[in-house]
Amino acid sequence: MTYCLAIAVDEGLVFASDSRTNAGVDQVSTYSKMHVFGNDGDRQIVLLSAGNLATTQAVIARVDRDIRDGAETHLMSAPNIEAAAEYIGRVVQSQDERHGAAVSAAGISAEASFIVGGQIDSRRTRLYLVYPQGNYITTSEETPFLQIGEIKYGKAILDRVIKNSTSLDEAALCALVSMDSTMRSNAAVGPPIELLSYRKDSLRIEHYLRLNEDNDYLIDIKRSWNESLLTAFRGLPPVRWSDLRDKSARE
Amino acid sequence: MTYCLAIAVDEGLVFASDSRTNAGVDQVSTYSKMHVFGNDGDRQIVLLSAGNLATTQAVIARVDRDIRDGAETHLMSAPNIEAAAEYIGRVVQSQDERHGAAVSAAGISAEASFIVGGQIDSRRTRLYLVYPQGNYITTSEETPFLQIGEIKYGKAILDRVIKNSTSLDEAALCALVSMDSTMRSNAAVGPPIELLSYRKDSLRIEHYLRLNEDNDYLIDIKRSWNESLLTAFRGLPPVRWSDLRDKSARE
Repeated sequence: MTYCLAIAVDEGLVFASDSRTNAGVDQVSTYSKMHVFGNDGDRQIVLLSAGNLATTQAVIARVDRDIRDGAETHLMSAPNIEAAAEYIGRVVQSQDERHGAAVSAAGISAEASFIVGGQIDSRRTRLYLVYPQGNYITTSEETPFLQIGEIKYGKAILDRVIKNSTSLDEAALCALVSMDSTMRSNAAVGPPIELLSYRKDSLRIEHYLRLNEDNDYLIDIKRSWNESLLTAFRGLPPVRWSDLRDKSARE
Repeated sequence: MTYCLAIAVDEGLVFASDSRTNAGVDQVSTYSKMHVFGNDGDRQIVLLSAGNLATTQAVIARVDRDIRDGAETHLMSAPNIEAAAEYIGRVVQSQDERHGAAVSAAGISAEASFIVGGQIDSRRTRLYLVYPQGNYITTSEETPFLQIGEIKYGKAILDRVIKNSTSLDEAALCALVSMDSTMRSNAAVGPPIELLSYRKDSLRIEHYLRLNEDNDYLIDIKRSWNESLLTAFRGLPPVRWSDLRDKSARE
């Protein structure tokens, strides 16, 4: 399993990803799912990947090769982020055409999804989620984040906290909390956690961190958040059965 | 969609369910998913249902009919809760044999799952989750709760709060918070919310509530929990990029 997310706020973009992959329960490994393609001053494009490891590796290898070979379309020549998402969608589809049927026949899904985000030149910062079928969606005012992989456990805190006006650092913290909730509920999502923030119009990566399991800050967030939630829970108004029963009793 | 959960603590059992059902987006209705079968002083058995509405209704109708007809096995004669779960499993399977293939052929899942819990005579309080295939699982010391339907959004708070020593009222409050998180993230889970608590060895239902969308207490919980989470989030240690970068920089 995998959990990756990206957040678009007025100040810029935040990306986060876990690093655990597994092919069956007994083949658990660590692979980075965050790939940065950029030229400072010209463009920064971040790719996050989820799904079949062979497919995601093949896609990244092809993206690298297209840049090296100066293919007709590649990430370093894409005119805007949507064109980059469209290109990734085509690469994903070509992988599916090559191996999809054989892999499906073995009862395994070859599907992979990607988040593509960043900024090119003076254009707007953008985020896209590219589906295994090659089509894609972007964020909206109301939902300024995208998730791939094990998305449900970590969605609540994003829904509650993230607005367009949220600061870049708050968005990064929220991404870590979302990752922590997911790791707590699904053992197949795990560290190292990669966290990246990009400030709008800087055209360079502002901050990048790779946090291992034993990282003091990650442990601190995990512990603080758990304690805060328990304190918050204890502060809720208790169930007043008798007051309520008058209005709604079945008995 | 549906969300139902049941919690087993030392003091007794808590059950909660939403009431929204949908067959496609344009056929949304309200049906109770909580069914109580009991004789005060002898037994209390609670059934929660999730999945295909035709299947769950047929199962409940059959359970009622078996009691009325004094069938060889029925809920009011089951010697213990495990036997009740086994019986529900058989009823589910017989429904599947009758309609499963035709419904599947139409591209719809006829599957349904149930939570069966309660106490019979002086035996232990027990909870079981009955799968669509008729097999079942129970709780453990480490995981003293069961969920069916849309289970992921509301799991985190249960994982953090619920222990065997949690009081019955705290468990009921936690069930409501878990329900609130789920309703917030999935619009197909909705009120009225039914909430029931059973105190061990009482052999009668202690408390039952049916909370509508405009219930003051439900609104209060929703608002308090959201505010508490935002306060808890603001109290977390901010991301200290520069301190951390020394140890983990990619740049």
